[in-house]
Amino acid sequence: MRSRCAMPGLFITLEGADGAGKTTQGALLAQAFRILGYPVVETREPGGTPVSEAARRVLLDPSLKGMVPMAELFLYATARAQLVSEVIRPALASGAVVICDRFTDSTLAYQGFGRGLDLEQLAAINEMATGGLTPDLTLLLDIDTGEGLVRARLRRPEGTKWQGVDRMELEEAAFHERVRRGFLQLAEKDRARICPIAAGGAIAEVHRRIIDAARRLVPDLPYCHG
Amino acid sequence: MRSRCAMPGLFITLEGADGAGKTTQGALLAQAFRILGYPVVETREPGGTPVSEAARRVLLDPSLKGMVPMAELFLYATARAQLVSEVIRPALASGAVVICDRFTDSTLAYQGFGRGLDLEQLAAINEMATGGLTPDLTLLLDIDTGEGLVRARLRRPEGTKWQGVDRMELEEAAFHERVRRGFLQLAEKDRARICPIAAGGAIAEVHRRIIDAARRLVPDLPYCHG
Repeated sequence: MRSRCAMPGLFITLEGADGAGKTTQGALLAQAFRILGYPVVETREPGGTPVSEAARRVLLDPSLKGMVPMAELFLYATARAQLVSEVIRPALASGAVVICDRFTDSTLAYQGFGRGLDLEQLAAINEMATGGLTPDLTLLLDIDTGEGLVRARLRRPEGTKWQGVDRMELEEAAFHERVRRGFLQLAEKDRARICPIAAGGAIAEVHRRIIDAARRLVPDLPYCHG
Repeated sequence: MRSRCAMPGLFITLEGADGAGKTTQGALLAQAFRILGYPVVETREPGGTPVSEAARRVLLDPSLKGMVPMAELFLYATARAQLVSEVIRPALASGAVVICDRFTDSTLAYQGFGRGLDLEQLAAINEMATGGLTPDLTLLLDIDTGEGLVRARLRRPEGTKWQGVDRMELEEAAFHERVRRGFLQLAEKDRARICPIAAGGAIAEVHRRIIDAARRLVPDLPYCHG
């Protein structure tokens, strides 16, 4: 259900595992909209505002090892509430296309299917954090769990700012498999909004699949890679 | 309603405005229990664990001025979820007296009565953060709003680690008056748990009122000041 009656913009979210290519594909999708002259705001969760980035730093701090799932959930909700209020709603109100790397579905997939928190409680938290704001389109980049983990690790070598590996990446493969299945289940339940995209191939190939999916919103959206 | 069936300890919270004397009085109350040989755990919100202290630093960061009330709420919930799970429940399970400086009533008073967030939503968040844990006794230190503000400001001179004044203390007096009325309304509704204490007098005098109130839990609790 949407609560965007008066908002002329378009709200698109990218979901899926770390390493599925959300950042790369989000940038290409933004480029496609810009070619047509749309103002585009690209953002990410958790982050995108000073308050949200502060919450992100706590979430990714590898020294905070004993964080309980409920505390983690509330930190994501903190980042989301601020981002929706400070960035996403104003951008949509001004008519922009907002492309957000992760949103409410990540909470359901990671904290719900992944960590076993109650899905109804999570939905209630999502509702409070967003004020009921729902994406027009969610692109679920689906990738084999093993391949995603390898890609995500290659991207962050030893000695980077998160000391090579963050808390999420320390979790076991079984967790990531539950998350993947969770995302696919969410897509199954909300086909009108969530579009699964096979994300295992070449960048240009995945980009074409994404543009094809986004044409349900803007039919003349061009390919802009490969 | 309590969810502590199997817990042998005692859970006491101190509530009220900054400057009402919660820290001083909490320490004296702890001393009274220790005189009788009780193991006592003193803690505070937001804080008391590394995760909770990290959330506290974000909350009190004066550079994060545009924080929306919902984000603030979720940061307090983060700190609470971790503190309950990591400190309070294990201490109660071991038979200790836990004395906590602020707890769920502060959320209702500050975010609900103070900032106007929905009280039912706040109660749902409190329930999730605590897993239903409710204090055995809540001592509400009630003080004239003007006096509390003066005391709180005197305590934090220019140049301390929070640059003399934190975000909460920048809020206007009307806000603090709404918070005070909110606390008193909560006490009115739950007389079995919340005991209002006139906190405007001398330390020894307020201490005696607190011990008198706590004797409903432990009848032979001694005075230990003045």
